[in-house]
Amino acid sequence: MKLKKRGMKLPSISKRAQKYKGSPIRRIASLLEKASMNKDIISFGGGAPSLAPPHEIIEKVIQQLKEKPQLSTAYCSTEGLPRTRELIREDLKRDEGIDISPDEITITTGGTEAIYAVFQTILNPGDEVITADPTYLCYEEPMKLMGAKQVRIPVYWREDFQFYPDRINEKITNKTKAIILLSPDNPTGSIQTEENVKGIVELCEDHDLWLITDDIYKDIVYEGKFVNSREYGGYENTITTCSFSKTASIPGVRIGYAYGPKQVISKLSELKQATTLTAPRLSQYFVQALLEDGARVKHEYLKNIVIPTYKARRDAMARELKKQIPELEFSKPEGAFYFFIDMSDYIQDDVEFSDRLFKEKSVVIIPGSHFGENGKKHVRITFVSETEERIKQGISKIRDFIRE
Amino acid sequence: MKLKKRGMKLPSISKRAQKYKGSPIRRIASLLEKASMNKDIISFGGGAPSLAPPHEIIEKVIQQLKEKPQLSTAYCSTEGLPRTRELIREDLKRDEGIDISPDEITITTGGTEAIYAVFQTILNPGDEVITADPTYLCYEEPMKLMGAKQVRIPVYWREDFQFYPDRINEKITNKTKAIILLSPDNPTGSIQTEENVKGIVELCEDHDLWLITDDIYKDIVYEGKFVNSREYGGYENTITTCSFSKTASIPGVRIGYAYGPKQVISKLSELKQATTLTAPRLSQYFVQALLEDGARVKHEYLKNIVIPTYKARRDAMARELKKQIPELEFSKPEGAFYFFIDMSDYIQDDVEFSDRLFKEKSVVIIPGSHFGENGKKHVRITFVSETEERIKQGISKIRDFIRE
Repeated sequence: MKLKKRGMKLPSISKRAQKYKGSPIRRIASLLEKASMNKDIISFGGGAPSLAPPHEIIEKVIQQLKEKPQLSTAYCSTEGLPRTRELIREDLKRDEGIDISPDEITITTGGTEAIYAVFQTILNPGDEVITADPTYLCYEEPMKLMGAKQVRIPVYWREDFQFYPDRINEKITNKTKAIILLSPDNPTGSIQTEENVKGIVELCEDHDLWLITDDIYKDIVYEGKFVNSREYGGYENTITTCSFSKTASIPGVRIGYAYGPKQVISKLSELKQATTLTAPRLSQYFVQALLEDGARVKHEYLKNIVIPTYKARRDAMARELKKQIPELEFSKPEGAFYFFIDMSDYIQDDVEFSDRLFKEKSVVIIPGSHFGENGKKHVRITFVSETEERIKQGISKIRDFIRE
Repeated sequence: MKLKKRGMKLPSISKRAQKYKGSPIRRIASLLEKASMNKDIISFGGGAPSLAPPHEIIEKVIQQLKEKPQLSTAYCSTEGLPRTRELIREDLKRDEGIDISPDEITITTGGTEAIYAVFQTILNPGDEVITADPTYLCYEEPMKLMGAKQVRIPVYWREDFQFYPDRINEKITNKTKAIILLSPDNPTGSIQTEENVKGIVELCEDHDLWLITDDIYKDIVYEGKFVNSREYGGYENTITTCSFSKTASIPGVRIGYAYGPKQVISKLSELKQATTLTAPRLSQYFVQALLEDGARVKHEYLKNIVIPTYKARRDAMARELKKQIPELEFSKPEGAFYFFIDMSDYIQDDVEFSDRLFKEKSVVIIPGSHFGENGKKHVRITFVSETEERIKQGISKIRDFIRE
């Protein structure tokens, strides 16, 4: 290796890069990848689906690769394959009663790129975006890359983490550009009431705001009901981001989408040329297989495998928490993969608590403060990764740790 | 569809989105996708590989999907699978004599994301980046998203499009942050001399600049020699972007990479969490199959298929151009997929010329002005897509069109 010229000053990285904070969960994911052989670790950490994807979508991709190897690995247009977008259009019409055209949909490299592209398309420096607190921890940094600011409104377990329009209204200023609605929610597993969804749609219309609905967990519902916010209006000012990662247990294929008003989506697609050019083509065939034939595979997979499995795990976690650590109070999640537990009576510092729990008991949980100021002294524990038996073991370990 | 509330003003899109110019080539790609059934169209347009990928990499992915469907579609860490990075490290060591560690490599969603991530990581608003003119047309818009400015230095066919350090030196100011070296080049097919590469490395060291080497065409060389610029130093201030799209004819799987100094690559990986979270996992198995076993598949595929096929097409295009339109002068490309032809004696407007050629003769070419001011009255024609026979037909059509 040749060393640098004597006296050379290394060029600097950008200010945005210096300020950027990497996700603490991705660091845990990286650690878990290395430790994945260690069966002693119980993971209530990352929200990755733990089920095998539907075998039919795997077979479809194998068949596609066998029959059309060259086509399967060829470029596609930036907005995604026409067939993928048409199937998503049909799916939204059939399952959610939402009537849009394929031109209003663009395929992205995962839900992450959909969120990034929406921010890139609508946010100016100085803009404010209102979210719940706690909320998904990967809105803030992408937003900051656009020079925008996240304005957080506390939600509480005693209120089932409801995101009330009247409290949002108090935080709207002339800088507010958008509201993000994530329901079912990460990290709380809550589903917003129809009344709240309706109220948020009206707020956005009254104040000329973008409504960003992040529907990634829309298929992961145990009780209650997911409602597409367009039921109440806002076709012209709502942009939705979504992904197939949770629905079909295929996070690694990286297929998501964004849809909304045509002129915004077409600009968003153009901007996507700069970030990834196009979403992977082969990955789109998984999605096509999932949604073809009236989305038969999707419906069967959710009904027969995903919901029963995760619901049983959720119930096991709720049962064990109540039985083993009855002093903990929480709101039982109606959707998604998570319990968000208020531990303010028992801990001073949720990060330190989580670190020590991992070191001393080999149980991974996520500190609540990662999700916002209002998440301090809370922890997020997911039931998605472990069997009911191991959920029981993990809760015992948490109990022992608290008792010690 | 519910209409918007009466009197609602639609929220605006961002200024950056308003200013963003979509790639004209992607628009052509979109058109070609729709027209792909029309065999009358001869495409000298987009630079997409036209060969089937090596069957062994297809088989490896099929086998992987059959044996490990769940793992194949699972998340991986943001920097990419350890095995993929290790194989790239070995490949760089073996084929280019470049000695880096896997921690200095991150896997991206195509070369596009690698370029975007590098810009995001190093460029501040107001920074200047020096490139050749003409050059790849997707540097400018991503750079502008970072607030940086492209400074273009003319290169000429009469000089084999060489990018001379002394001319670059004249354009270096206190705002200059980086120089981009793309060799073999798009749109000219030129390969920089070792003397120029060495001179550019020294310039960057002397002026404390980043050197960005875009090595996407490094394996597509007919004469001359690709040289990794690190041969001449700059390990600490060089960042390389690359992709497997051209080498293995797999542009749709979207796997690229960036490598450089560890602290920069680790920051770049963090920033990538915001854009795509991770590159698609399944897609990485294509690359692993390509590079395993001393990169046997890569070497055989390049030697037996890629280079002979494209070289014959390049030679056919050069032959037909000389024979059928002898008044055209050009520099024969030594690498990549393109001829970049000066037509200033024959046309006033390259965009109009290309449009009319498509409408009247169904031949797709790319106007040179898309690649820079100095590309005006030039055209880029690629030999990558068509057989020798159809290259002959296409050149005849261009001849007829010029003669008419």
